[in-house]
Amino acid sequence: MSDDTDAVDDGDTGPGEGADSGPTESADSGPTEGATDPVDERDAHGWPFELRGVTETVVTTLGPNGRWNVAALGVHAGDPATARTYGRTRTWRNFRERGGGYVQVTRDPVDFVEAALAVREESDPVLESADAWVRVAVTERDETDEDGTPVVTWTLDPREAGVERERVPTTNRGHAAVIEGTVAASRLGVPAFDTATLRERLAYFESVVERCGGPRERRAWERLTDLVEAEW
Amino acid sequence: MSDDTDAVDDGDTGPGEGADSGPTESADSGPTEGATDPVDERDAHGWPFELRGVTETVVTTLGPNGRWNVAALGVHAGDPATARTYGRTRTWRNFRERGGGYVQVTRDPVDFVEAALAVREESDPVLESADAWVRVAVTERDETDEDGTPVVTWTLDPREAGVERERVPTTNRGHAAVIEGTVAASRLGVPAFDTATLRERLAYFESVVERCGGPRERRAWERLTDLVEAEW
Repeated sequence: MSDDTDAVDDGDTGPGEGADSGPTESADSGPTEGATDPVDERDAHGWPFELRGVTETVVTTLGPNGRWNVAALGVHAGDPATARTYGRTRTWRNFRERGGGYVQVTRDPVDFVEAALAVREESDPVLESADAWVRVAVTERDETDEDGTPVVTWTLDPREAGVERERVPTTNRGHAAVIEGTVAASRLGVPAFDTATLRERLAYFESVVERCGGPRERRAWERLTDLVEAEW
Repeated sequence: MSDDTDAVDDGDTGPGEGADSGPTESADSGPTEGATDPVDERDAHGWPFELRGVTETVVTTLGPNGRWNVAALGVHAGDPATARTYGRTRTWRNFRERGGGYVQVTRDPVDFVEAALAVREESDPVLESADAWVRVAVTERDETDEDGTPVVTWTLDPREAGVERERVPTTNRGHAAVIEGTVAASRLGVPAFDTATLRERLAYFESVVERCGGPRERRAWERLTDLVEAEW
């Protein structure tokens, strides 16, 4: 996901984004607030959940219309943790202009699909399904070019964190298949990837969702197929 | 996983299994104990974690040598929950002879790989990595034949449950790739599955583990490749 989901949030500016005309109840989440908000120190680096390898998260960033844009973001473990934006996406723009956002983890596959593949905006920065969230300040570390796409690496500095609920984690192959499905779906039409291979993968993940998923996984797959105009 | 991991635990009787010569500190987990052990009622059906679709669990069952055999088990949500054994596996034998076992969830990918692909026995029924466990009494519901393999469906009746720890669940594609890798690996050599397709899938999941996994996922993949004598 870290490689491509944000590319789906493709920098296409939606209606109303040109003006700060949205609701004002959403507070700016800029780094200047950090000093007065102690981090809930749940791990050594201020994150309220374990980071290892790449953790697939949802990030909300405040747009010029005063609404929170919802996107997928792969957070790379490290000190500091980092994340990449691919292209001139809303997240890239809002990171630059606001200096941060809310990184959150959700187990809801429908919210994940929408973050990865749809343009979604909310009036509140934390999704109802989020089990935990972290307000981060971001700093641009470097920018490279990958086949014409500007790839920016951001460092993420946790400033405030909250845990909404803890639970016994379970493993559901259907859930994982939805996540992998969003990766494959977001690569359709990208020249570097072979379409036949992606379709085969999507067909496989669809079968896993059908056999192993629960109702939310099946709903997420429906949403995915609605959002991606392709067949497999 | 529900379709095939237990088939890996292939009914081949290991050394010492013919006699009850093992350590005796492992108590029998039969259903007769249920009346005095109230279930920790964490959901409507007595399970200490959410069941939806198929949940990939690890099951330990007491063998004739007094040791706990560790295997993978896909638990199908329902009232009652059910699971299938494929072939004359250790789990099948122990379910029949002991009437139950310990179903547990772990997020440790190494333990999952070993449960699914190795023969592993422990002196204690609950793995250290288990976040929660359920002692179940099982009843054979039906047996069918799939291409010569006897497939038994068992109903699972929770009798006692424990939660070792709760946490904020996170999504790691590397973890999911390990789980999917064990499924593909356990199908290698099974006539109903195309080997080239399985190898292609394994190569893909390996790349996901490398890019997105943490140290335990990479270790789990090494273990998987050690246990499966194949290349992809």
